[in-house]
Amino acid sequence: MSSDDDSPLDTVRAQVESEIPDDLNVSRVTYEGPELVIYTETPRKFAEREGLIGTLASTVRKRITVRPAAGTQASPAEAKPQILDLIPEDAGITNLQFYPTTGEVLIEAEKPGLVIGRRASTLREITQKVGWTPEVLRTPPMESSTVDNVRNFLIEERDERREFLERVGDQIHREPTHDTEWVRVTTLGCCREVGRASFILSTPETRILIDCGDKPGAEGEVPYLQIPEANPIPDLDAVVLTHAHLDHSALLPLLFKYGYDGPVYTTQATRDLMGLLQLDYLDVAAKEGRTPPYESAMVRKELKHTITVDYGNVTDIAPDIKLTFHNAGHILGSAVAHFHVGEGFHNVVFSGDVHYTDTRLFNGASNDFPRVETLIMESTYGRRNDYQTDQEDSERKLIQLINDTYEQDGTVVIPAFAVGRSQELMLVLEEAMREGKLPTMPIYLDGMIREATAIHTAYPEFLRDGLRQRILHDDENPFLADQFQQVDGGQEMREDIAGGEPCIILSTSGMVTGGPIMSWLELLGGDPKNTLVFVGYQAQGTLGRRIQSGRREIPFSDRGSRSEQLTLRFDVESVSGFSGHADRNGLEKFVETMHPRPEEILCVHGDESSTDQLSSGLYQKFDVRTYAPKNMETFRFD
Amino acid sequence: MSSDDDSPLDTVRAQVESEIPDDLNVSRVTYEGPELVIYTETPRKFAEREGLIGTLASTVRKRITVRPAAGTQASPAEAKPQILDLIPEDAGITNLQFYPTTGEVLIEAEKPGLVIGRRASTLREITQKVGWTPEVLRTPPMESSTVDNVRNFLIEERDERREFLERVGDQIHREPTHDTEWVRVTTLGCCREVGRASFILSTPETRILIDCGDKPGAEGEVPYLQIPEANPIPDLDAVVLTHAHLDHSALLPLLFKYGYDGPVYTTQATRDLMGLLQLDYLDVAAKEGRTPPYESAMVRKELKHTITVDYGNVTDIAPDIKLTFHNAGHILGSAVAHFHVGEGFHNVVFSGDVHYTDTRLFNGASNDFPRVETLIMESTYGRRNDYQTDQEDSERKLIQLINDTYEQDGTVVIPAFAVGRSQELMLVLEEAMREGKLPTMPIYLDGMIREATAIHTAYPEFLRDGLRQRILHDDENPFLADQFQQVDGGQEMREDIAGGEPCIILSTSGMVTGGPIMSWLELLGGDPKNTLVFVGYQAQGTLGRRIQSGRREIPFSDRGSRSEQLTLRFDVESVSGFSGHADRNGLEKFVETMHPRPEEILCVHGDESSTDQLSSGLYQKFDVRTYAPKNMETFRFD
Repeated sequence: MSSDDDSPLDTVRAQVESEIPDDLNVSRVTYEGPELVIYTETPRKFAEREGLIGTLASTVRKRITVRPAAGTQASPAEAKPQILDLIPEDAGITNLQFYPTTGEVLIEAEKPGLVIGRRASTLREITQKVGWTPEVLRTPPMESSTVDNVRNFLIEERDERREFLERVGDQIHREPTHDTEWVRVTTLGCCREVGRASFILSTPETRILIDCGDKPGAEGEVPYLQIPEANPIPDLDAVVLTHAHLDHSALLPLLFKYGYDGPVYTTQATRDLMGLLQLDYLDVAAKEGRTPPYESAMVRKELKHTITVDYGNVTDIAPDIKLTFHNAGHILGSAVAHFHVGEGFHNVVFSGDVHYTDTRLFNGASNDFPRVETLIMESTYGRRNDYQTDQEDSERKLIQLINDTYEQDGTVVIPAFAVGRSQELMLVLEEAMREGKLPTMPIYLDGMIREATAIHTAYPEFLRDGLRQRILHDDENPFLADQFQQVDGGQEMREDIAGGEPCIILSTSGMVTGGPIMSWLELLGGDPKNTLVFVGYQAQGTLGRRIQSGRREIPFSDRGSRSEQLTLRFDVESVSGFSGHADRNGLEKFVETMHPRPEEILCVHGDESSTDQLSSGLYQKFDVRTYAPKNMETFRFD
Repeated sequence: MSSDDDSPLDTVRAQVESEIPDDLNVSRVTYEGPELVIYTETPRKFAEREGLIGTLASTVRKRITVRPAAGTQASPAEAKPQILDLIPEDAGITNLQFYPTTGEVLIEAEKPGLVIGRRASTLREITQKVGWTPEVLRTPPMESSTVDNVRNFLIEERDERREFLERVGDQIHREPTHDTEWVRVTTLGCCREVGRASFILSTPETRILIDCGDKPGAEGEVPYLQIPEANPIPDLDAVVLTHAHLDHSALLPLLFKYGYDGPVYTTQATRDLMGLLQLDYLDVAAKEGRTPPYESAMVRKELKHTITVDYGNVTDIAPDIKLTFHNAGHILGSAVAHFHVGEGFHNVVFSGDVHYTDTRLFNGASNDFPRVETLIMESTYGRRNDYQTDQEDSERKLIQLINDTYEQDGTVVIPAFAVGRSQELMLVLEEAMREGKLPTMPIYLDGMIREATAIHTAYPEFLRDGLRQRILHDDENPFLADQFQQVDGGQEMREDIAGGEPCIILSTSGMVTGGPIMSWLELLGGDPKNTLVFVGYQAQGTLGRRIQSGRREIPFSDRGSRSEQLTLRFDVESVSGFSGHADRNGLEKFVETMHPRPEEILCVHGDESSTDQLSSGLYQKFDVRTYAPKNMETFRFD
């Protein structure tokens, strides 16, 4: 409180006090994670001043939340009817919860836009009336147990989480003790290979881990977390997750087992999806008799430590590092992560997995940044000849394959990632049936596809503009079409389906490394009238890749101790245009149109031939320095 | 002792026992550093068997020392006259010392060859007669306080040192706990710059630091010892020093201040030279009012932890790493360090500083290895046009310059490294005067040049073949010629010399960064009849480089608080052929003739233009992968 103590927080408090009118009271200022929280005894007056928080936020260059000091708001019993009165009936409120310790009221609604009001006018009115600070969440149009579980868990942990956020806030806004004289990037995985994405970004002041995935088809090969650059794990300043796929997220909870106790930054959609996929990852490991590297308690710990960041929000995550997420176009919530280091010292962009052009689900990846010197870029389809057909052509080809199979009374099986490709295909198939290009037949969803789809509907902000409208405003949610049926009757139901009428089956896992797709191969693989269609990337070492490359004899050892051989007799086809990854052309375009052009590019996340060929291709085409690093290397940028 | 305990040491003991005849007793087997020590109650019988130790050594693939078990040898009083009786008078014994704890007798002699005898016959006779194990050292033909001090210190610390060596021996021969699946090299300094040479070589099992130098002209810029790859410092398995120059050795004692307690591997000559130069480094820092980063006690600690290794001896320094030193041709004791990792997994060579062709002092650098995949190579003269004139031409030019200066009644001042260039020049000048190409005039040696020269005569094994003969066998030691005079009368003597007859002055420091050369500039620089001749590399940021580049106004602030300006009016010349570094041609030849050809080369230890141009030159010429790393980068090799 004394003016001669000028800690960073005191400085900000003084700034806040000098900016606001005299009749507004500030009782306490604190950080919660990257956000500045102002407690006030005059919350209603704060709410009256439209634009004040915005001005304040741009002065102190932080996101700001204003909360009522204890005792200044109406009692929940008084406040509840007043709030309900202010919000239009159409909003469809499904939950209203008061948190007296922070003076916040959580409002879950089917149409959150109606709760917020034009330019947040309804929110302001609520505070003016009852003194509580409203926080709004969307009730998913399709019920999702994941979204429910995550939200309920975070609600339970709300108080502990606030303590955590205050601790992180102090960490982020500490007085730096080093000059930013260098930036380093260390590769812990996914170099000259697909899988186990993981990097360390470090400066003299800060160490950040980006992604921590597994390697499909090689479960023992995890990121090189043991090397010195990654240690000690508990001292990491932050963990950043670009998207939820397991080759980026599977081993993130392991960090908490190793004693990490800091924040995980990701988007809201990725938070829920990663929870879903990680718990399934544990489940699959248990079913296959492997010892999972961590327990589900670590997933909960991770969720509790997750701080969500929206696309485009510049967020302080350390004294010398600002993080901004941009749409990556790959899956729901997927992000390109931009790191601004020092005060204009250096900018590093991690592409994560990207799709350059628009798809049915998502807008194409963003590549417009204030500055970028170094780009760490995925290379999945980085080889000279890795050109995918147009999505239009691919759709035509897929529809043709389905029609052909249907005519010979067969069933089409499509291995698909639960998250991403399945929803894209659902949109294609629903439209084709609606427009009569395909006969209407059942489309069975096996594995977590339905649940993942529900999560998409909970976060429509991440979807492509037109689709968002259809899901939310026009009540013509394509994902709810009748032909989509969940396989929820176990093996018996699968046998019925296999023995029944022609249909389409979308089943996990996408690379045929386990999961219900194994049953489908067994049930349908022996009959030449059926067709297997690959629509996504098949990593080296996976069964999917082997089948795609022509292998037809498959060992089956997952039922009891018998080891059988299965001979595939159905047609095996690949349709390339549905990948969530940019093809070689898209990768080049991503760099070509990037603003500004980076000075050096590290090509990662691709087989050795892909990273090599992309690296030399980009060098020749754009005259930038390029590298195809190995795992466990450290590059310095300055 | 029990046979069911099969520790690595037990295995070796069993091997030894099965190899030797039954009448030889083995009372104890232990490691001292990389060496296997066998204690026996029958030392005389061991000595009778010529060739036995050699056979044993090649079976267990270790160097072996046999020592008498306590109580089996004659008393020192009895033994001494018998030993003296066995050694020819000509050997010139100067010291004979008995160590009852280890049963060793140290024999210092002017002609150690006569003590050893043909194929070590005299040594064996000594043991047969008295039961003691002799250890032989050369008494330097020129008295050297450094050699004396180092030897006396090590003699004092002999018992403590044995404990240290046993501890290191256990460490080296521990059961490895990791597979050798990767090798990494981290750059801590001397990348895109000259100075602060330092690297980490690491495997999953082992971490080794190579060199730890300062940066001439930028005393604050030390190796990046704080980065994770180098830490924790006390856990390093070994430190390896390629040669004694301060840009490789100055900060090595700092490691002991940071808690390092393990071995330093280097050659015998380098051990003594580094001690000399490091103590001088502390001295200079104190004189210039800087706080040295460590105290002289740390130099003693370092010496106590030094294990010397001869050229060509394959030495275990960790469970998965063997070190072999090879002649580097740069200065006395300088080595190319070859690391064999794993059982044939990978081989890394650190060139250190190299001179490719023969010089008067040294044979050219060795580049013949059993295997080498990765080469870390110096690039001091790596630019496209960095060609030095032939040494013959250079000598002619130098002699001309001296004659010209002499004719105009002037004096020639040559800034020179105490170690290396000075001795080379002494040989040139002595010959020229002997052959009448130069008038005989005094050659004054200022700074540590005389002491460094004496160390050269203590280790003639490191010198070029013909020179070794002259120093040792023919009693025509060129370094003892009359015209060489030590400047031992301080500033007064310098003033007398400067005011007297024409002469030649060799003075440290070699890059004009301090030391007596500063006085010589002041005393002689103002008079156009004198000449300053640079004969060695002048690093960026040094006063030497600035003068070489044309600067003639020099600030002088080292006398009291006055800050004066000195204007140089004498001629400034450079003669390039005397450098201790290979020129661009030599560097290329070093790679071209290297057997086998490395697969990848990291170009280090040179200004940015030098490392860049050498890197692209070697790539184009030899089609190997080449890099010009930055400091603080980590490369993986496998």
